[in-house]
Amino acid sequence: MPKRPLITLTTDFGTRDHFAGVMRGVIASLAPAARVIDITHEISSHDVNEGAFTIAESWSWFPKGTIHVVVVDPGVGSERRPLLAQAGGHTFVGPDNGIFSLVFEKHPPKVRALTNEKFFLKPVSRTFHGRDIFSPVAAHLARGVPPSRFGKLIEDYLKPLSLKPQRLGRRIWCGQILKVDRFGNCITCFHVDEFPELTSKAFDCQIGAVTFCRMAENYTAAPFGEPFGIIGSSGYLEISLHQAHAAQALGVTSGSPVEITFAP
Amino acid sequence: MPKRPLITLTTDFGTRDHFAGVMRGVIASLAPAARVIDITHEISSHDVNEGAFTIAESWSWFPKGTIHVVVVDPGVGSERRPLLAQAGGHTFVGPDNGIFSLVFEKHPPKVRALTNEKFFLKPVSRTFHGRDIFSPVAAHLARGVPPSRFGKLIEDYLKPLSLKPQRLGRRIWCGQILKVDRFGNCITCFHVDEFPELTSKAFDCQIGAVTFCRMAENYTAAPFGEPFGIIGSSGYLEISLHQAHAAQALGVTSGSPVEITFAP
Amino acid sequence: MPKRPLITLTTDFGTRDHFAGVMRGVIASLAPAARVIDITHEISSHDVNEGAFTIAESWSWFPKGTIHVVVVDPGVGSERRPLLAQAGGHTFVGPDNGIFSLVFEKHPPKVRALTNEKFFLKPVSRTFHGRDIFSPVAAHLARGVPPSRFGKLIEDYLKPLSLKPQRLGRRIWCGQILKVDRFGNCITCFHVDEFPELTSKAFDCQIGAVTFCRMAENYTAAPFGEPFGIIGSSGYLEISLHQAHAAQALGVTSGSPVEITFAP
Repeated sequence: MPKRPLITLTTDFGTRDHFAGVMRGVIASLAPAARVIDITHEISSHDVNEGAFTIAESWSWFPKGTIHVVVVDPGVGSERRPLLAQAGGHTFVGPDNGIFSLVFEKHPPKVRALTNEKFFLKPVSRTFHGRDIFSPVAAHLARGVPPSRFGKLIEDYLKPLSLKPQRLGRRIWCGQILKVDRFGNCITCFHVDEFPELTSKAFDCQIGAVTFCRMAENYTAAPFGEPFGIIGSSGYLEISLHQAHAAQALGVTSGSPVEITFAP
Repeated sequence: MPKRPLITLTTDFGTRDHFAGVMRGVIASLAPAARVIDITHEISSHDVNEGAFTIAESWSWFPKGTIHVVVVDPGVGSERRPLLAQAGGHTFVGPDNGIFSLVFEKHPPKVRALTNEKFFLKPVSRTFHGRDIFSPVAAHLARGVPPSRFGKLIEDYLKPLSLKPQRLGRRIWCGQILKVDRFGNCITCFHVDEFPELTSKAFDCQIGAVTFCRMAENYTAAPFGEPFGIIGSSGYLEISLHQAHAAQALGVTSGSPVEITFAP
Repeated sequence: MPKRPLITLTTDFGTRDHFAGVMRGVIASLAPAARVIDITHEISSHDVNEGAFTIAESWSWFPKGTIHVVVVDPGVGSERRPLLAQAGGHTFVGPDNGIFSLVFEKHPPKVRALTNEKFFLKPVSRTFHGRDIFSPVAAHLARGVPPSRFGKLIEDYLKPLSLKPQRLGRRIWCGQILKVDRFGNCITCFHVDEFPELTSKAFDCQIGAVTFCRMAENYTAAPFGEPFGIIGSSGYLEISLHQAHAAQALGVTSGSPVEITFAP
């Protein structure tokens, strides 16, 4: 553990309510030396996929040893288990609902079920495990409690279908929009590492009712009013409109299909 | 005072403007060792009740000795006084408009009027006491200046009518919605400590144009489309809809009445 | 450099995405001792003027030596240069698009083009210089790397037309709304230091389809429903409505003209 351990928070609690502040209060009470960084508290309500994308894009930019708490948890209070996982030199704490699947896909994890209630706040409420389970567990980890103390290794954590493009034909792939960012850019599941031909070959891309075939080097290199593709900062194909909200203009949203046909 | 004093901020300044950043700048300038945690800056504009609810739900999760600055202050620049209060082992700084009433109800405070202008930034503006009065006072407190230096004890601070349910008949109580949270859950003023029968007795609950009688153990244990009650993480009766925005569906908002008739 | 260097962040990245969190991760990785304070991540997309106003209102409230990173950058990935500037005892890092013009107007800067790629994350993406250039440069500055190591002094940085009122007649001036704050107050470019007669002379102010002539001492001293002027916390004339959203009621927005005719 570093001398000033680092904890990140990613939730769908929003920033209007007291929830995120209370999580920080619990951590400050149990682990005064820990630093806490908010990644975001504005994951769309109950949208596990958006949470999975956000933590997958964020975690590796933090120092080794960082503890990442992710609470997008529509099943809070039901039978779903709380987890602690170690992957890629970092530690992850959150519900067993696939929220870490995009991280674990590339970095095989050691996963534990959080069963040692000694590290929970009591009584554990039915609706706010961010306060009662995930924050105190992160704080105790930050204080140096070894992961093995929190529960046993498990193998049967939830492994949702991956969000990778599916092949429909010899040169045709169907994927989806993983996320629409604040600017309206549509982040698709086509990653340049798996589809290097995105930057070298011509292709048609069908999204909403529109088909386009233009790639751009940067956001300013495209004419106004016409959709274009760009390899975004995370390596995924993004579909954008110059200084406009692409998702609204194209009538698509997170989860909408994106079909790509490569030139022969 | 702890070695690394802790200050929390709760305001209606929003996060788009420079106001919250400037408060942090003032604190960083005067008390470099202090840690600052935002509870929220998105209390609805001028909504003192929502601010009162938010700080009441938050403060006790922080370590003893924490300084809580709350600025929801429609009367800024008028005759209302700035206050410093000690209650429950914590310190509270904010305007004299009832913002701390839900805290003080359970934890009798020692309240002082902030009159020692030595601890203000000068000139004090008419519109931004968060910067000119409340942040510097919190910073000086964090540096160890004793509360008595800031002003004299007073008794006549504002004590608004409490937000407790009123009895309408032998088995009928009328309360209100304290707050609608981000998910649309309606937090009512019925607390399980004062109404333990909420979890043991049948009752009818009238809210908006709807009457329902169902309690649920957790958010996933209810059928879609039907309102239900649940004891929320703060102990208050909340009225919810499974994965939907209850307040919008029921046509209610903060302040709307909630009537409960217990079975004989 | 102070022992615990301070970095502020002002961007238009919003708080829903991973962008701001990733910037903090990069800084935490390279400069673990640095403290980071968000001024805001909610500048309107690509609105360089709003960003310029926000950093101008904020920077001086922080301690000397603070490093201010501002990323409102519609030209990211194009030929616009990244800059490092020293002014007023603080350091500024951001794109060369006028974002610091309101700071530099009053505090003549020493400006450098950031050309030493040794201090960038590689490969530099086309779309996220906040992560790849501006955050690591700020982190290296916080670690004590002297500004001269990052690139050479330049004089030809962008100096946009100032946002000052223009004289239309002997007693008539035309300015504009710099910004609409969260409460709907319209912050105009008339500053009391340049127009002291705002507080001493009668005047007509035309905004939207309305002309008014009333100044108020504070927000509560005006009747409901009638626009009034007030010298805001930053010294600019603000146009407000008592507990209502002035910009919406008047049908104006950032950039809308404001004409003032002083009494003879």
